[in-house]
Amino acid sequence: MPDTTPTRVQIALMPSGRKGQVPYGANLLDAARLLGVELESICGGRQTCGKCQIAIEEGHFPKHAITSSAGHLSPMSGGETSYREKHAMLDGRRLACACEALGDLLIVVPEESQARKQIIAKAATDRVIEIQPAVRQIYVESAEATLEDHHGDWERLGAAIADQWKLTGLTLDPMVLPTLQPALRSGKFAVTLTLWHDREVLRVQPGYAEGAYGLAVDVGSTTVVAHLCDLRTGAVLATEATMNPQVKYGEDLMSRVSYAMMDKQGASRLHRAIITALNDLAKRAAERAGISTDDILDMALAGNTVMHHILLGLDPVELGGAPFALAVDSPLDLKARDLGLKLGVSARIHVLPCIAGHVGADNVAVQLAEGPHRQDEMLLIVDVGTNAEIVLGNREKVTCCSSPTGPAFEGAQITHGQRAAPGAIERVRVDPVTLEPRYKVIGYEEWIEPGAELPDGVRATGICGSGIIEAIVELYLAGIIDSDGRFNENAPERSPRVRFNGRVGEYMLADSVHTASSNPITVTQSDVRAIQLGKAALYAGVKLLMAERGVTQVDRIVLAGAFGSYIDPRHAMILGMIPDCDLSQVTAVGNAAGDGARIALLNRDARSEAAKLAREVVHVQTAVAAEFQNEFVGAIAIPHATDPFPHLDGQLPAKTSGGAIVRRSQRRRMNQPA
Amino acid sequence: MPDTTPTRVQIALMPSGRKGQVPYGANLLDAARLLGVELESICGGRQTCGKCQIAIEEGHFPKHAITSSAGHLSPMSGGETSYREKHAMLDGRRLACACEALGDLLIVVPEESQARKQIIAKAATDRVIEIQPAVRQIYVESAEATLEDHHGDWERLGAAIADQWKLTGLTLDPMVLPTLQPALRSGKFAVTLTLWHDREVLRVQPGYAEGAYGLAVDVGSTTVVAHLCDLRTGAVLATEATMNPQVKYGEDLMSRVSYAMMDKQGASRLHRAIITALNDLAKRAAERAGISTDDILDMALAGNTVMHHILLGLDPVELGGAPFALAVDSPLDLKARDLGLKLGVSARIHVLPCIAGHVGADNVAVQLAEGPHRQDEMLLIVDVGTNAEIVLGNREKVTCCSSPTGPAFEGAQITHGQRAAPGAIERVRVDPVTLEPRYKVIGYEEWIEPGAELPDGVRATGICGSGIIEAIVELYLAGIIDSDGRFNENAPERSPRVRFNGRVGEYMLADSVHTASSNPITVTQSDVRAIQLGKAALYAGVKLLMAERGVTQVDRIVLAGAFGSYIDPRHAMILGMIPDCDLSQVTAVGNAAGDGARIALLNRDARSEAAKLAREVVHVQTAVAAEFQNEFVGAIAIPHATDPFPHLDGQLPAKTSGGAIVRRSQRRRMNQPA
Repeated sequence: MPDTTPTRVQIALMPSGRKGQVPYGANLLDAARLLGVELESICGGRQTCGKCQIAIEEGHFPKHAITSSAGHLSPMSGGETSYREKHAMLDGRRLACACEALGDLLIVVPEESQARKQIIAKAATDRVIEIQPAVRQIYVESAEATLEDHHGDWERLGAAIADQWKLTGLTLDPMVLPTLQPALRSGKFAVTLTLWHDREVLRVQPGYAEGAYGLAVDVGSTTVVAHLCDLRTGAVLATEATMNPQVKYGEDLMSRVSYAMMDKQGASRLHRAIITALNDLAKRAAERAGISTDDILDMALAGNTVMHHILLGLDPVELGGAPFALAVDSPLDLKARDLGLKLGVSARIHVLPCIAGHVGADNVAVQLAEGPHRQDEMLLIVDVGTNAEIVLGNREKVTCCSSPTGPAFEGAQITHGQRAAPGAIERVRVDPVTLEPRYKVIGYEEWIEPGAELPDGVRATGICGSGIIEAIVELYLAGIIDSDGRFNENAPERSPRVRFNGRVGEYMLADSVHTASSNPITVTQSDVRAIQLGKAALYAGVKLLMAERGVTQVDRIVLAGAFGSYIDPRHAMILGMIPDCDLSQVTAVGNAAGDGARIALLNRDARSEAAKLAREVVHVQTAVAAEFQNEFVGAIAIPHATDPFPHLDGQLPAKTSGGAIVRRSQRRRMNQPA
Repeated sequence: MPDTTPTRVQIALMPSGRKGQVPYGANLLDAARLLGVELESICGGRQTCGKCQIAIEEGHFPKHAITSSAGHLSPMSGGETSYREKHAMLDGRRLACACEALGDLLIVVPEESQARKQIIAKAATDRVIEIQPAVRQIYVESAEATLEDHHGDWERLGAAIADQWKLTGLTLDPMVLPTLQPALRSGKFAVTLTLWHDREVLRVQPGYAEGAYGLAVDVGSTTVVAHLCDLRTGAVLATEATMNPQVKYGEDLMSRVSYAMMDKQGASRLHRAIITALNDLAKRAAERAGISTDDILDMALAGNTVMHHILLGLDPVELGGAPFALAVDSPLDLKARDLGLKLGVSARIHVLPCIAGHVGADNVAVQLAEGPHRQDEMLLIVDVGTNAEIVLGNREKVTCCSSPTGPAFEGAQITHGQRAAPGAIERVRVDPVTLEPRYKVIGYEEWIEPGAELPDGVRATGICGSGIIEAIVELYLAGIIDSDGRFNENAPERSPRVRFNGRVGEYMLADSVHTASSNPITVTQSDVRAIQLGKAALYAGVKLLMAERGVTQVDRIVLAGAFGSYIDPRHAMILGMIPDCDLSQVTAVGNAAGDGARIALLNRDARSEAAKLAREVVHVQTAVAAEFQNEFVGAIAIPHATDPFPHLDGQLPAKTSGGAIVRRSQRRRMNQPA
């Protein structure tokens, strides 16, 4: 082994596998960057933040083989020693910024030291999100002000930022300017800056500081959900939800639009209501996480088009009628204070883009989370509300549309319909032989059978969306209603629960002793018709997109939104809401819009991705598509086994004739709860 | 003459003299642009705004000589005819946008149709300002929203802007977003947009609209002046001034800084006071001009460093002591609403840059107005306040400094000193033989002589800055005080107005019957000392810059600020405040800072120019310059005829010895008022 000092040494970094030569004596933080591996660092190499920890495995490259790696590394510096005295460090760990490469090295970069981390968030759906937030912190040491230097503190600091972080052209939020001089002086001219997109300074804190937080919010018509995240680690520190207070001005979207149309102050009242709710959510989330709302400096917002417009202070009136023109569809970057949001004084808001009058930022967020544009399989995403938003596509092309399902799936326009709330019947089974029902109400664990004793306070108050779908499918499977949706006139002979008033039938689902009103809860002929219209619209929309994409089958179906979580995919398929698909490939993803907002909060590239997908998605306007009406009419009936649902083969009644009942396979019974 | 239609025709434009060939049939608005002559146009060539009017003189180019220009121009269009029916147009005028070049043309572009107009503003100082404001209006016709087009109105409008005005990447102030859809619909999808730097939309108005206004403001310690300007024409529509309400927290700058230091709420109280004053000024100016404050969409702000900081909500404490660090020196672009200014909701503010702790945005504005960096002659600009800001230079290099003159020139630290306000003695003459005084008080036209009968309400209340300077110079010229500033012990023999208390002399300027307090107003030995210290500091600063620039003489002197307007240059020169210079080359420019702000308001390039000059000016720190103390000590005495003031030759007393009086030339008497 020659005794000469090499001018360059070889370095390999794991797990990336990157390797290359760097100058002898190179700082490992710089060396890693040189080789394309970005290490975490807030203090900018000052051995104070401890974020750039690495482990040295071995140094056994052919050229300078060694037995111990120690000799290839510079000894521990005073700064690193002092860091170790104050903080716990795992054995074998070193601060990359305190190490010089004095020989070949194999460096292992632990997960937490990788600047673009993959994290598995624990709240809501577990998703892998690459952490690269729009808002991040840097530590800077500025030159002191002197009589000889006539420049401003900000300009002096700017020079230090350019020197230490290679960032130029930064602006300072004017509301933050008053904190600059006090922070510089109390930090002895060292400060931690919180940056937005490496372009604007949102906060100046004295000395070394940690803590930048963000809120990801999905503003739903009914529920508003906020995730408070640590922008450095991506961790969800708190998730808070609240009822959308606009509900008091109108239960569903269109009634809120009507309210804004009829009352001159309507739009601004709706706007103030949601802003108040968001402020309340932020406050609660901050309290739960033990931080101040002043520490929240970024926010990503998703919501349907009406929520999006109202939130921005826009009158949603144009969304209430053709041509359903959005005021703006592009993503927006705002200051929280301009919307009256009480976060950090300089806090930013990123509003995700919309696609069309009925396809909003919530749908873009869902696409961001589910990524049809990132995969090969043909993915169908269905998000059911007053309008169903339907997305179909893969990496080649993504199409979307909205379909006017009406509010039946949300329990509106149903005789005993109601929102999903405690007391609502959410699941239903009907015995195909006895025609007796069993059902579950929200807020009570047990299935309720006729004649059961119920605890005080547990009573059925109505039927919510998932309940009415299951009820109608069960009535169909039991032969009580026909494929065309009519009550079978022979059914009353089989059970007194089925009654006719003239030619209009109904089924008594909950007995009066089990209801809050002491009146029975029934499923009526008009309920069946409302659901038929809704599901036909949904299915017609799906067919339209399948035609647009030129496919006759989808590989996977995702049911998005709260409704999607409650609905039983099998019932949805029997009803003909969604096309045939292997049931194992049908999944409910819950609040995927909230997840999408969280992704946009934690990853700035995801914001560009969302803007791109919103721009590139092919939107099909159902209202002007001629085929839509044809598909709609064809989809009104409940499908038979002869319809193209091979995955449901054997689970559907053969074409009913008179009152004859055909037994279905046992599989269905096994799927039923015990 | 050949009968063939030419493919190109020749066009000449006056007064620019530009000429060249353009395609046959070219629209004249486009043709002019092609040849580098920008015509005014708000409607973008739709024959509705009437801004692009031209006169066709003749078409007699060699190639296609004609006798009448009519045949070389397309006939009047329907749009132009319709415009003429509604608006008065001078004979021979045509709308360039409605004309096609069908032959050679000599086009005269009237002043008002030139896009970059030179205007002579009528308010304040008359100055030639090239009108090219940061805020301008454009008229755009957007495509209508349809069911087939799923894009937002903003995106559709953006496409129209790109098409019709070649502007892309515009953003829309979020506070303006709510007005977009109503404006588009009430304007039948045609709107007038007000743009900031062709980057951001500040306002959306239905159809064709005119009217964008701006405020140019100089925030002085004592007075705040605002010019309300039409941003299209540059016309000053109203000028309003008000006392700076911060005066109640401290008469001069340093006492306000002290107030902010001593009272925790001080800085924010000072801030709110000036914001309230600015809102009041804007309201008054808008009322006078007959517009709404909502129409004010831009503002240019100048002020000294303390005013600059307080206005921005910054605690001025750092400016109160060495090293006098500015928080920021660069120019700032803010939203008016972020400062609580009640202009248009999206109104912009441009804050001019500062140079150093004592050389503020007001000085930059003065430089912008007076342009030392644009000329060959060596220009000295002196702006006297508690600190004198001194600028010396020419296009090669400009230097500046501030010099601690103390508040004596503002009437403070003077026994009977006061601010320039009604009742203050502002002009003084002393008869060199009788030693009897004459003086003028602010608010009364006549010179007051001893024994005069004064109307009720007219009484002297004190001596302001210009008064004390003239008094001391007159006392010196009359031999009452010596060159070293001491009261001559023999003077009491010549007049009872000179008295000694021990060895300390004083001069009775106003008799008790002429004063508001019924006590005489005197000039004391300590007053002379205070003025000597002040003028020595000023002169030392000037000498420092002359040394820095390597010159022994200046070509021209500009006295800036209100004080400069009141002071008699000859007295200032006799006192030794300013260096020797041909008196005809000494001018007072009044509120040049306000003019500079107006230039920055009306011309966006001037903002860049101001930023550049602030960056490039060489600042000399008097507090650390060793020569400053030498120059200061050497400048305390009042100069003799033997001092280097050749232009004052014969106007100064020879070195006094004992009580002997030397007659001065008659020139001085001729300069005195009759």
